[in-house]
Amino acid sequence: MPALEARLYRIDRVLDHGFVRLVDYMGDDSAIVQAARVSYGAGTRAVRDDRGLVRYLMRHRHTTPFEMCELKLHVKLPIFVARQWIRHRMASVNEISARYSILDREFYVPAPADLAVQSSVNRQGRGDRVPDVDAVHMLDLLRRDAMQVYATYEELLNDRGDGTPVDADRPQLARELARMDLTLNYYTQWYWKIDLHNLLHFLSLRGDDHAQLEIRAYADAIAAIVAEWVPHAWEAFEDYRTGARLLSREELALTRRIVAGEDPDVILPKSGLSLRERKDLRDALGLGPPKSRPS
Amino acid sequence: MPALEARLYRIDRVLDHGFVRLVDYMGDDSAIVQAARVSYGAGTRAVRDDRGLVRYLMRHRHTTPFEMCELKLHVKLPIFVARQWIRHRMASVNEISARYSILDREFYVPAPADLAVQSSVNRQGRGDRVPDVDAVHMLDLLRRDAMQVYATYEELLNDRGDGTPVDADRPQLARELARMDLTLNYYTQWYWKIDLHNLLHFLSLRGDDHAQLEIRAYADAIAAIVAEWVPHAWEAFEDYRTGARLLSREELALTRRIVAGEDPDVILPKSGLSLRERKDLRDALGLGPPKSRPS
Amino acid sequence: MPALEARLYRIDRVLDHGFVRLVDYMGDDSAIVQAARVSYGAGTRAVRDDRGLVRYLMRHRHTTPFEMCELKLHVKLPIFVARQWIRHRMASVNEISARYSILDREFYVPAPADLAVQSSVNRQGRGDRVPDVDAVHMLDLLRRDAMQVYATYEELLNDRGDGTPVDADRPQLARELARMDLTLNYYTQWYWKIDLHNLLHFLSLRGDDHAQLEIRAYADAIAAIVAEWVPHAWEAFEDYRTGARLLSREELALTRRIVAGEDPDVILPKSGLSLRERKDLRDALGLGPPKSRPS
Amino acid sequence: MPALEARLYRIDRVLDHGFVRLVDYMGDDSAIVQAARVSYGAGTRAVRDDRGLVRYLMRHRHTTPFEMCELKLHVKLPIFVARQWIRHRMASVNEISARYSILDREFYVPAPADLAVQSSVNRQGRGDRVPDVDAVHMLDLLRRDAMQVYATYEELLNDRGDGTPVDADRPQLARELARMDLTLNYYTQWYWKIDLHNLLHFLSLRGDDHAQLEIRAYADAIAAIVAEWVPHAWEAFEDYRTGARLLSREELALTRRIVAGEDPDVILPKSGLSLRERKDLRDALGLGPPKSRPS
Repeated sequence: MPALEARLYRIDRVLDHGFVRLVDYMGDDSAIVQAARVSYGAGTRAVRDDRGLVRYLMRHRHTTPFEMCELKLHVKLPIFVARQWIRHRMASVNEISARYSILDREFYVPAPADLAVQSSVNRQGRGDRVPDVDAVHMLDLLRRDAMQVYATYEELLNDRGDGTPVDADRPQLARELARMDLTLNYYTQWYWKIDLHNLLHFLSLRGDDHAQLEIRAYADAIAAIVAEWVPHAWEAFEDYRTGARLLSREELALTRRIVAGEDPDVILPKSGLSLRERKDLRDALGLGPPKSRPS
Repeated sequence: MPALEARLYRIDRVLDHGFVRLVDYMGDDSAIVQAARVSYGAGTRAVRDDRGLVRYLMRHRHTTPFEMCELKLHVKLPIFVARQWIRHRMASVNEISARYSILDREFYVPAPADLAVQSSVNRQGRGDRVPDVDAVHMLDLLRRDAMQVYATYEELLNDRGDGTPVDADRPQLARELARMDLTLNYYTQWYWKIDLHNLLHFLSLRGDDHAQLEIRAYADAIAAIVAEWVPHAWEAFEDYRTGARLLSREELALTRRIVAGEDPDVILPKSGLSLRERKDLRDALGLGPPKSRPS
Repeated sequence: MPALEARLYRIDRVLDHGFVRLVDYMGDDSAIVQAARVSYGAGTRAVRDDRGLVRYLMRHRHTTPFEMCELKLHVKLPIFVARQWIRHRMASVNEISARYSILDREFYVPAPADLAVQSSVNRQGRGDRVPDVDAVHMLDLLRRDAMQVYATYEELLNDRGDGTPVDADRPQLARELARMDLTLNYYTQWYWKIDLHNLLHFLSLRGDDHAQLEIRAYADAIAAIVAEWVPHAWEAFEDYRTGARLLSREELALTRRIVAGEDPDVILPKSGLSLRERKDLRDALGLGPPKSRPS
Repeated sequence: MPALEARLYRIDRVLDHGFVRLVDYMGDDSAIVQAARVSYGAGTRAVRDDRGLVRYLMRHRHTTPFEMCELKLHVKLPIFVARQWIRHRMASVNEISARYSILDREFYVPAPADLAVQSSVNRQGRGDRVPDVDAVHMLDLLRRDAMQVYATYEELLNDRGDGTPVDADRPQLARELARMDLTLNYYTQWYWKIDLHNLLHFLSLRGDDHAQLEIRAYADAIAAIVAEWVPHAWEAFEDYRTGARLLSREELALTRRIVAGEDPDVILPKSGLSLRERKDLRDALGLGPPKSRPS
């Protein structure tokens, strides 16, 4: 894959000090097709071209052929992001160990534009941007604490970086203990290997609006790699996953009635959907707000 | 299981503020036997009693019957311990989310006796205990930083705990952002469910001497539950896993020569084993130190 | 759970000689809620009742709390069904081993009503029912072959069932070899343990119209158990999974235009959807067939 | 990797009609080292060369770096072998589906030298070779049955191979039904992808003496590929896994006493070990049979 070969080892910057770096990959769109043709044999003859077959597989949730591709990345990321990321169990990870190594003085501080207040509607999310004057103060606090804990970390370690003490009269605290003083915005690094099926699942969750902005930044950087690596799979993923909308049993019944000519402003308020779910469905169907306020 | 029923929901304290609490379990020694008898049928008739069969399974690494038992725990643990723990992928986890909730002001500080210097022989481990005078200072630093970052956390959140602001004139930073200022010794909590096969693997790694003392404390607390829950499996685990010793191909060849009467002080220094590996093997075979210093 | 306790160990017949038997379970709807409340803490306060919270989790694909429940079944099933079933990797299995045990003379023969011709539209499926006269002949062939291979199996084994030979002058072929002569409709048995999240995934695939009728019969039997065990989760599963419909990006765009008043008979034929996909979408939206034949 | 590039797509014959074919791979010994150096950082500095580090990782069960390598194989194998193989869950599989495709008339028949009687000591294994005169008869039975069920399969399918009927007056039974008449020695095919850590686990179990000879033949063919692909990892695997011996707690205690000069003929019979376990331990320690018959 010439496009991907050119990308190998290239650093793609993410956040203030993080990155994603493509280390290795196995397979491409044609490897998906190859495995599917073994599996479904005669069943795939009707679908002649690779793109059509990849789309068919994605549409019908034939997921195993997508497992035949692998991606290996080197990632530098804040610890609080790593904690969300690691929840994806179907992957292989080698993370830098702070039991063995001394972490660098690198921590994440959000851009002022990314400092947001707690959302009042969504319990897990962000609301409006924090006013500049408050943002300056908040970022100062984050920086001050990060600097201070690192100074403590260094004092506890008492290590020039090569194992010899800075101050020969003081003990060198075990690294596995000293690291507990670091804050969660310190950067860590890992090698991360995952197959394409599980990677797309990761991207659908972590590239979503409900994901925290910081991990979404990584999902976006990886998505750019995937779009180059397996263009057919990526297009199908956008058409049948991220760009698709699941209608629940009730939403489907309501949609049928609206298509049949019933007035959404009348039937939606009488449905079992909450106010917010009604708004979501109106958005999905391009209905705009109700003419009269729903009860 | 009367013994385990009495344990249900009981808090077993671990470290300064952590705990392990048994929430639920499925199966016991007899469930292992039941599954094995389906699998091996006639092959298990010769082994009449449950204890013997469980030992046979453990000895011959027939691991699937051990998957038939499940344990569910509620655990409170420092974040740096949680980061090691979560690497065990074959388990189910629901962790308190600091995107939704505000974490309590509870952080881990080691007991003075557990403060140790970086080991000079083992790159990942602890060496001697830190002298008391230094320990007092180090613990002060840890406490000071933890208190300070929590004060910052509260200032950033600006939340009385019920969503209303402490100071109505200041913004409430999103929880998912504020939490990045906490240090890694803050406590988190989770529900953790795992089958017995994977749990024993966890205990063999995290209850081992090479594991960090803090996670070992949890492994010990869980081991006490397992020993009551599945006494036959636990006994077999101790006999064939934790109390067993793997001899490598070369160690086995050397052991044969020693059994045949050759002098370990002569043959070990000429082997391919490192000084440390030779010491390990001498310990395993009860040989004591060599009479003359090996080259 | 009184309802489930009454079901324990009960044989639910499936196909001609198969069964599903509930052996054990852990957790119920309230265990899902319990884990979710730990995870989402304050975020779950707004949703007061258990049913509402379970529905919220299912709707928003918060899948981990569903992993907190486990089901253990004893299943008797034809080998060709077992081969499809075992592809679900996130489960624990102990199957009767024909290396150790002698399989019984029990094989699956479809009911005449279930004998169907190869579908001409769907490469993996069944079409119309085979005419009775042909069905009688086909079933005779299946029975004849199954009886013959079992006679061979017995001759090869030369075993009274207790290890002693039927004919002391002939050798007893190793069981692991003799079993290769059995046909794929012979019954096997296993213990199967799986968590609720993965079980629902299994049921969504194996209870679907596209699944082979024989495995669907097992999915239906298990679904009846699940509906009693976790009624809230089951209701949510039907509303947000099996009864729901995913609209692809293009289907969603077309649906919006139809809702806005455009004529489906005009816009669908001009879309990128195939004839069959157009029919699927018309069915989903309750449109009925096009008035004029689409090009 | 020049050695492996030359192997790509090459058919390595296994059994009478089976094969293993290398389709793709990712990583090599240096990828293991690369991941380990990220993980253990300073901890790996002392170990300078790749071979030494790979051996260190294998010896100390640092398994995650071995997950960084992947192998993809195309395998043709009898169904009863596939049923054992698929129990290794940590792998990706695309198998030819007999719901879509018509299987070829290819079945496994053991070589006469591989026909063995049921072992009297080992409930799962093979004993002596079947006498030639019996072997000829047994193989005739296997061939006869396999030929007959295929004739039935063809009659049920009534398909020229291109979907058109052989006899237009008879129905074509659905493929998913017809295949149930095939015997378990028929060949199937699949693409199989697995990481090196899980592959080595597979090879340690399936290349072992206790594995069925037929799956061991595949394990041997794959082992030859792995030995070329990752020579350092393979050497370490042989030294610390397949060539190693685990001494149980009791075996270790007995070995110490023997090393200290006690007479094995005296202490072993008084131990808790069974007659067979005593023989195993004597073999491991190179002791030869006891001088006097143990009680």
